[in-house]
Amino acid sequence: MSRVNPPPMDTGMDDGLQVDVAIVGAGVSGLYTGWRLLAGELAQGETRPGSVHIFELTERLGGRIESVFLPGVSLAAEIGGMRYLRSHEIVDSLITKVFAQELTPTDFPLGDDSNHYRYLRGQRFKADAWVNAQKNRQPYWTRYFLPSEVVGFDSDQLFNKIIYDVLMADPWFRERYADKVSFTAPYDYGFKLTAREWDDIKPQLTYRKPGPYEGLKVNDLGFWNLIKDQVGQEAYEFLAVAGGYYSNTINWNAAEAFPYLVGDFSKADVSYHTLVGGYDQVGNSLAQRYVAQDPTGKRAHLWGQNGLQRLDPAPGGSPYKYVLTIGNAQSGKSWTVYANAVVLAMPRRSLELIGADRFFSSPEVRAEVRKNIGAVISEPSFKLLMGFESPWWSQEFNAHAGESLTDLPMRQCYYFGTDPVNSHSILLASYNDMRTTAFWSALMASPHRNLKRFKPRATRLASAEALAEVESLQAPDVMVQEAVNQLQELHGAENPVPAPYVSYFRNWTDDPYGGGYHAWQAGVSVREVMPFMRRPDPSERIHICGEAYSDQQGWVEGAVCEAEKMLQAHFGLAWPSWLDSQYYLGW
Amino acid sequence: MSRVNPPPMDTGMDDGLQVDVAIVGAGVSGLYTGWRLLAGELAQGETRPGSVHIFELTERLGGRIESVFLPGVSLAAEIGGMRYLRSHEIVDSLITKVFAQELTPTDFPLGDDSNHYRYLRGQRFKADAWVNAQKNRQPYWTRYFLPSEVVGFDSDQLFNKIIYDVLMADPWFRERYADKVSFTAPYDYGFKLTAREWDDIKPQLTYRKPGPYEGLKVNDLGFWNLIKDQVGQEAYEFLAVAGGYYSNTINWNAAEAFPYLVGDFSKADVSYHTLVGGYDQVGNSLAQRYVAQDPTGKRAHLWGQNGLQRLDPAPGGSPYKYVLTIGNAQSGKSWTVYANAVVLAMPRRSLELIGADRFFSSPEVRAEVRKNIGAVISEPSFKLLMGFESPWWSQEFNAHAGESLTDLPMRQCYYFGTDPVNSHSILLASYNDMRTTAFWSALMASPHRNLKRFKPRATRLASAEALAEVESLQAPDVMVQEAVNQLQELHGAENPVPAPYVSYFRNWTDDPYGGGYHAWQAGVSVREVMPFMRRPDPSERIHICGEAYSDQQGWVEGAVCEAEKMLQAHFGLAWPSWLDSQYYLGW
Repeated sequence: MSRVNPPPMDTGMDDGLQVDVAIVGAGVSGLYTGWRLLAGELAQGETRPGSVHIFELTERLGGRIESVFLPGVSLAAEIGGMRYLRSHEIVDSLITKVFAQELTPTDFPLGDDSNHYRYLRGQRFKADAWVNAQKNRQPYWTRYFLPSEVVGFDSDQLFNKIIYDVLMADPWFRERYADKVSFTAPYDYGFKLTAREWDDIKPQLTYRKPGPYEGLKVNDLGFWNLIKDQVGQEAYEFLAVAGGYYSNTINWNAAEAFPYLVGDFSKADVSYHTLVGGYDQVGNSLAQRYVAQDPTGKRAHLWGQNGLQRLDPAPGGSPYKYVLTIGNAQSGKSWTVYANAVVLAMPRRSLELIGADRFFSSPEVRAEVRKNIGAVISEPSFKLLMGFESPWWSQEFNAHAGESLTDLPMRQCYYFGTDPVNSHSILLASYNDMRTTAFWSALMASPHRNLKRFKPRATRLASAEALAEVESLQAPDVMVQEAVNQLQELHGAENPVPAPYVSYFRNWTDDPYGGGYHAWQAGVSVREVMPFMRRPDPSERIHICGEAYSDQQGWVEGAVCEAEKMLQAHFGLAWPSWLDSQYYLGW
Repeated sequence: MSRVNPPPMDTGMDDGLQVDVAIVGAGVSGLYTGWRLLAGELAQGETRPGSVHIFELTERLGGRIESVFLPGVSLAAEIGGMRYLRSHEIVDSLITKVFAQELTPTDFPLGDDSNHYRYLRGQRFKADAWVNAQKNRQPYWTRYFLPSEVVGFDSDQLFNKIIYDVLMADPWFRERYADKVSFTAPYDYGFKLTAREWDDIKPQLTYRKPGPYEGLKVNDLGFWNLIKDQVGQEAYEFLAVAGGYYSNTINWNAAEAFPYLVGDFSKADVSYHTLVGGYDQVGNSLAQRYVAQDPTGKRAHLWGQNGLQRLDPAPGGSPYKYVLTIGNAQSGKSWTVYANAVVLAMPRRSLELIGADRFFSSPEVRAEVRKNIGAVISEPSFKLLMGFESPWWSQEFNAHAGESLTDLPMRQCYYFGTDPVNSHSILLASYNDMRTTAFWSALMASPHRNLKRFKPRATRLASAEALAEVESLQAPDVMVQEAVNQLQELHGAENPVPAPYVSYFRNWTDDPYGGGYHAWQAGVSVREVMPFMRRPDPSERIHICGEAYSDQQGWVEGAVCEAEKMLQAHFGLAWPSWLDSQYYLGW
């Protein structure tokens, strides 16, 4: 299988190094920034930086995108971000235009709901139960004690109803946008609002239901506050559980939640895409293009296991503006890099760990940076992969893709796929977030105790040698056994779950990530904070970009949109030739 | 009403100050340490420090104990810790022996369950519904879909059953302690284990149910992991909700959870106590005795709004071991204090905010301190008080004390009391923790937005002038209205909830506290970490004490037990004359 692998990173050091631009973080926003700075179209009269180096704390590039190959299966499994939407035009154009030679997009199939399970409050049923009942004009009864006006809705439909009702209750919205939303039949809501229109709506929409919140801006409300006020706490619990992601319904910014849910989770006809050979190739390709700009490593250089420890003004007399202290993991030593501009391409927790607010000399800017670093919520997220000798989910209940879900702590499993040339198969055995991650983190080794690892088992395709190589990456045995228990309870005794032969897991909650994705706090002026982060102080050349402070949180597209706006506004780059000139990059 | 008020704190500064012992944090453990160091019995041959100063970041002493007097009511309301148990011998002896002249203990009544409401998954019933049904040999049916063997248990009984079953499944326990536990009738479990016996049991108890956890130490398991394995996820949800505190059932150290629940929450006959005039007097009395040791302020001195910023070794040649950099809030300036010993009497979040691990010179000790600071979980906690003109809960459904509870985000309300000489009354309108605090924090003002405050309303007893003084302390109006809505839903339309005339709230999750209380992580060797924290490095004189790293977390007793053990082991103090010589202080 052809695949774009990551270029090697330099884990050494070069004390006293001088560069024009230092990028901290080799996730997708950092890699994109590096490549665009060295290879992108310049605006008229602008000059290109002579050297752009990237410094990564870990031994891996790609940040929260990570494709995994389990022994015995040639399919890529995703332990991090796993897909994109066609509406993500930067990602889509990179894949289909810029990297068309290297990368092959493919559908990320969702499978057929009639073969997927739901197991909620001990009730087991198929995922299409609501829609089937609706066809017979009967409500489907779950074990949630819902107000009569929302009984029978599935979670997607109920999210849509709430958003539709709140939008249409505001005369300001009705006057301008009533024709862009529709309610044509029971359960059937439609939204045709563009991202540009949502940016008009989000700061202006007013909450118009009598009660505690009447007259507040929706942007000042938490999404939990709003949902409870619309449909009550039991229906809130239903949405939090049946929607699959607790993160979607935490008490984040309600105005930001609206387009997020309408654009993805609550839209039955949305189609996802990924890359043949692993979604991490989007980062790998950017990294390859970036390092290709200068094979000698002067202009472009990828430093790995080299994390930023301090950022200070360069001493007087230095031709450079900043001095970076970099900690080198392999030697345990620190070294010094001089730079004229610094891009911090990292999420909230990483910014906190390095104390990024202290990098700014003005006390007022420091306070503002500290405040705005806290404008988003880091969302704990945990994934566990398992390899099986055969796709029991296809054999037993004809599932070939997509997910089943439950209120058990495992929450979701994704039937990832089966090797086309053999029967070995991959299951994302648990994908859970927020409060459930604590169930699993107590089953992880910690600085306080070790736990026996799961013992991989050789199969006719996965040799003992191949498995020995991944032994140190296995999840704790107790975690694997507990997850198998929950998979069995979710699927029912009629669908026996066999023993996996291999595992892999990641708790994205752990440092330096702090979570798998982010969400804006209620009450934050997102319109102001986004551009602020891209250059907090006009007198400084310190920039912050990435998914965390974007308006497409949880998506690679959010990360690269922030990078692109930063590059055009502060680094003299022109609109990319490969990107539709009408594409809207957001605030 | 006679009441012990806090002594004034000095909010000024005295650059270059030299003291023998610097205590950082004027919560109960810090105040207790200050008083004992200056006034306590010395062990033979030991000498007393010449000067002991206390430095407090905030403008208030008492830490997470705070009594509040709302205009129009002479009763104290508690917005922080509110009670103690007779088994808390240090607290009880302080109150009944040391401060017998000043303090008057009183019962903290729990009221009568037959007048308290439960409102779970939309089902409203009285708190004694389970016990009444049991008398008729019928299970009480809630909307939780429980395994048949636990249907009909109330939450206290079910906690007891789980703990009993796990204890008795281990032959090691049965051989030694079978006679200390009992199961005499359906639902009726008894535990007569002492704290000393629990300290024998906690590290040794093995989990003996076939499945993923078989053979693990209970100390290595999370309490959620264990409960789910015993009774399933729905019964876990029932316990988490019906027990009133999410914090009791988070995935904390299961072995620590056992005595914690048996000693308090799951024991129907436990009796609570508090102080006439406010529980904060336990801290105020300690502070008064402490400053009374030297009215000139040389030996004893309470510094307020003076927070520790750095702790460094004193420069060579200094007769002192350490130099503290103290930030003075009023001037915005820093000043310097020299000391030979430092006591950090603070919770986890405060230790993190000041970077306490960096205070130690040995890199190994730093790493160990960092690891052990993380050995406990900070538990978010939120309280909202309301004043009413009359006790509608007494008038409408004959409740006079105790709590009702629900799975609505308000979780618990406590019918605090009615002024004996008038009818004005206090309700703890919401007492909630863990994930529900986010519901309320989105209804708080933040650095990102203001919210209109609740407008206090004059009554025949609370004058407009008195209310004007507390206007700046009011909760946001939207928070009060939302809480009233939830109180109404909890109590039902037949019990109309009138408008409050005044409010007060605190989110203990906010800095510098990080939470209302703490819990040990699964897998931590609590037996080793507790003494470690009291003196992490034998070659240093830096000590950590307080509730967070105690074995009675959430209680004042935990805080003072840690302080007392530190004082006896590292400051030459003898056993207090006022404390039963047989009392067990724990690890």
